[in-house]
Amino acid sequence: MSSSAVEEVFADKLLNDWLSGVGLGIEYTRAEGNELYFVDESGREVAVVDYVCGFGSLIFGHHDREIVEHVKSVLDSQIPVLAQLSRQPRSNEVAVALNAIMRREIPDAEHGYSAVFANSGAEAVEICMKHAELERQARISTLVDELKAHVQEVREAVRSGRATLSENRYVQADGPADDGDAFESLIAEVERRNSAVLSRGPVNLALEHAFHGKLVASIQLTQNPQWRTPFTSLAASTRFVRADQPEEIKAAVEDLRESLLDVVLDDGAVTVVERDFPAIGAFFVEPVQGANGMRPVTAAAARAIREVCDEVGCPLVIDEIHSGMGRTGAFLASSHMGLRGDYYTIAKSLGGGIAKNSVALVRQDRFRPEFEVIHTSTFAKDGFSAAIAVKVLEMLEADDGRVYTTAADLGERLLAMLNSVKADFPEVVSAVNGIGLMIGLEFTDQTSASAEFIRDKARSGMLGYVLAGYLLREHRIRVLPVGPAANSVRFEPSILLTDADIARTESAIRDVCRILRDQDEKSLVQ
Amino acid sequence: MSSSAVEEVFADKLLNDWLSGVGLGIEYTRAEGNELYFVDESGREVAVVDYVCGFGSLIFGHHDREIVEHVKSVLDSQIPVLAQLSRQPRSNEVAVALNAIMRREIPDAEHGYSAVFANSGAEAVEICMKHAELERQARISTLVDELKAHVQEVREAVRSGRATLSENRYVQADGPADDGDAFESLIAEVERRNSAVLSRGPVNLALEHAFHGKLVASIQLTQNPQWRTPFTSLAASTRFVRADQPEEIKAAVEDLRESLLDVVLDDGAVTVVERDFPAIGAFFVEPVQGANGMRPVTAAAARAIREVCDEVGCPLVIDEIHSGMGRTGAFLASSHMGLRGDYYTIAKSLGGGIAKNSVALVRQDRFRPEFEVIHTSTFAKDGFSAAIAVKVLEMLEADDGRVYTTAADLGERLLAMLNSVKADFPEVVSAVNGIGLMIGLEFTDQTSASAEFIRDKARSGMLGYVLAGYLLREHRIRVLPVGPAANSVRFEPSILLTDADIARTESAIRDVCRILRDQDEKSLVQ
Repeated sequence: MSSSAVEEVFADKLLNDWLSGVGLGIEYTRAEGNELYFVDESGREVAVVDYVCGFGSLIFGHHDREIVEHVKSVLDSQIPVLAQLSRQPRSNEVAVALNAIMRREIPDAEHGYSAVFANSGAEAVEICMKHAELERQARISTLVDELKAHVQEVREAVRSGRATLSENRYVQADGPADDGDAFESLIAEVERRNSAVLSRGPVNLALEHAFHGKLVASIQLTQNPQWRTPFTSLAASTRFVRADQPEEIKAAVEDLRESLLDVVLDDGAVTVVERDFPAIGAFFVEPVQGANGMRPVTAAAARAIREVCDEVGCPLVIDEIHSGMGRTGAFLASSHMGLRGDYYTIAKSLGGGIAKNSVALVRQDRFRPEFEVIHTSTFAKDGFSAAIAVKVLEMLEADDGRVYTTAADLGERLLAMLNSVKADFPEVVSAVNGIGLMIGLEFTDQTSASAEFIRDKARSGMLGYVLAGYLLREHRIRVLPVGPAANSVRFEPSILLTDADIARTESAIRDVCRILRDQDEKSLVQ
Repeated sequence: MSSSAVEEVFADKLLNDWLSGVGLGIEYTRAEGNELYFVDESGREVAVVDYVCGFGSLIFGHHDREIVEHVKSVLDSQIPVLAQLSRQPRSNEVAVALNAIMRREIPDAEHGYSAVFANSGAEAVEICMKHAELERQARISTLVDELKAHVQEVREAVRSGRATLSENRYVQADGPADDGDAFESLIAEVERRNSAVLSRGPVNLALEHAFHGKLVASIQLTQNPQWRTPFTSLAASTRFVRADQPEEIKAAVEDLRESLLDVVLDDGAVTVVERDFPAIGAFFVEPVQGANGMRPVTAAAARAIREVCDEVGCPLVIDEIHSGMGRTGAFLASSHMGLRGDYYTIAKSLGGGIAKNSVALVRQDRFRPEFEVIHTSTFAKDGFSAAIAVKVLEMLEADDGRVYTTAADLGERLLAMLNSVKADFPEVVSAVNGIGLMIGLEFTDQTSASAEFIRDKARSGMLGYVLAGYLLREHRIRVLPVGPAANSVRFEPSILLTDADIARTESAIRDVCRILRDQDEKSLVQ
């Protein structure tokens, strides 16, 4: 690559300018453990404590030695990477390992989970949408067949004089007097109304502040309007409900209720009754909401969510892409709140920080076997990422789950530290949320701050990035805001975080709090 | 992993049974060059010539030594794999290399192409859909603003008596007599009609037999009804047109035409005129249709496609996921037919047979910079796959494009061989299509075959798989049918295919032809 060629910019032009503008425009040249490294002007390598860790993809940190050695041995063994439509037993090895872990964490689960592999978290979410639609279409098909059979049955009864048409609101007042004609007119009206309902696509349910990916359909489940609304014409829509309002969840389901009209005989009279139509595709839930300041779903919300899914019969998709793989001190964050899903999604750390792998898990008694044939992907189930996933799951489960207890312990120490900062700066820190190594700290609203720079950055939604730039520049600590929250920072390090890192982070966060308290805007300007 | 645990089946249960049923249920244990290896009952390693090559993802074959050494050195150098929202210059290195290649192959291109990276081919397609929708929404927004300004302008003219309402079909006959009231009634009707048009999502165009992926939105572009129709409620729909019927393409565009009503003044009279509404999202085209027997799009079709896109102003997306990266003897298969795209998608071999990488390229003068910020993906732009992509592109371009000429030469030899078989078995081979190392051979319809086994397999759409099973079992040659075509085989090997392989393949294919000609069904039964 000639140096003149690389001066051209065909990627990340706006993004890199913007990153430089907020003080995040650094190129990291090396990554190891919980650190990223850059080279400063004097040519010295500088270590940065990484609290972003691939947006939670690095439970074992960057370039874990055991994983890297495993990757090299996988390459040396020349295992087939791409061998579609042959037996690829590593997929099942990964699925068996996942099921063993889930069996331990979901004690009352009667069923295993069938695994469908993909290449990114968003793809796993889309697999869930597709599978939920197969379930919904099957329910619709059964219902429609039943309705058709009823029409035939009632028609024969009317023709043979065994049934009479009672007055009802679906027959035009000025309609034909003859029972046979009136019946056909009724059926025409019923079918007109039913076909209008049948032509509608499903609506999915998700929580406010949800993040489930950014592909054309998964972006509909990701609430942030800046990312979602340009694309709402493209795919099935989502009703967002508040996790902290169980009653609102039930009301939304009620509001989305649709029915098909069913013509039946009731004691010799032709009667029209309403039958529930499966209008809801699935309910997507992150047990810990990454884009909501890392707030875990409450036990009350978990119960309400499970109840409405059971009531309407739609699958509950527990999206563990961000929270799973040990990050919260358990393999599944949902196990903390006793939330049992019909589908699960897992990704991020499943790739070991090197490969790309994700999986959608579907309760076996709901799994539609034909899905294995109709849904495929060239890169999915590849031997490379599967071999890494097997290794990573073994490492997670090793030593009686030392990774889980480490994540839980470290997370508690980090949380305690951040809460102590919050206690000392109540006017600056408004919330600390999270569980395990998935923590968010929110600063108080600064849109009316006295310091102009701070106020302006808060109003443009950039304050969190500016604070992240300051922490990087002055303290060699890498954080980012939590989702769209303008004035927050996320802490989702690997299990390699040390007490010394936490101590250093405490003084850094206290420094930021002091700046906000004193409105010391000069410190923030690059 | 205990042996009892791996006896449980949580993945590929139906699929593996089905593969065994057609003779493809083999586990490959090693892959190198253009061969996959399995271990037979006697413990011997058996080589199989691979004509599937990761559905075209292995232009350099399995585990190319140079790529593997590069991957290991990338791991040793500990380059950051996941460092989102920092400067990641390797993305631009890949984009620069792609632009240099495209500049050579698309001589009249005035613009460079901005690169957006993803994790699979389907994801790159979905990026194109999202970007096309940003373009469409921007056009709609401009149009709506203009319409609103016209209403205001005309309203003022009517109020001040400078304009009169001519009779027109949008005003109710029994409407108000007063010009001001009549105008408001006209506007209400115009707005009612316009909002009905505005509420509709876009329709995309694609060719019959198209394959563009299987995510929720991309599956709508993949014609095979078995894969697509269960999911049509979920996302924007597609109008499929025949590539060999340029007139049909134009008629489809005409049929999809929608307009908004614009109220303007024409010489003092209030007039309603129609304005073209951007109803079409994008036109997705594979230059060589993998699921259509590897048929290249003709030059006439290419011209018609380019013309309609220019006429309606929608982007032409050239999907080079399957055909790109040198497979057809050029970097872009579309360059053979002089087809210039507004967007391109590239994937498969970009991952070097190990990593997962894909890219959507958007003509820079159409690229909307905000897309870099609103569309993101945790795994995309990762340092690992980017470093591999840089290497693979260098290897493709090395030695004055030796890879391209090798692919072209080998492809010609393979094509010549298959055509000689076709000439000798005209009653058995109906078509040989393709370009470079992307070739399909179709057998004649066997649904009325005299041999019952052959007839039954043809009728159930399984004959191609059964023939693939036979070729694997008896000749150690791995092929698969082309897309949904029941009685075909695909040849998309790496550039490592040898003349000896071609010779061996010739006798194998002749053997299959003999079986079909003689209706020798006994040979096919496992």
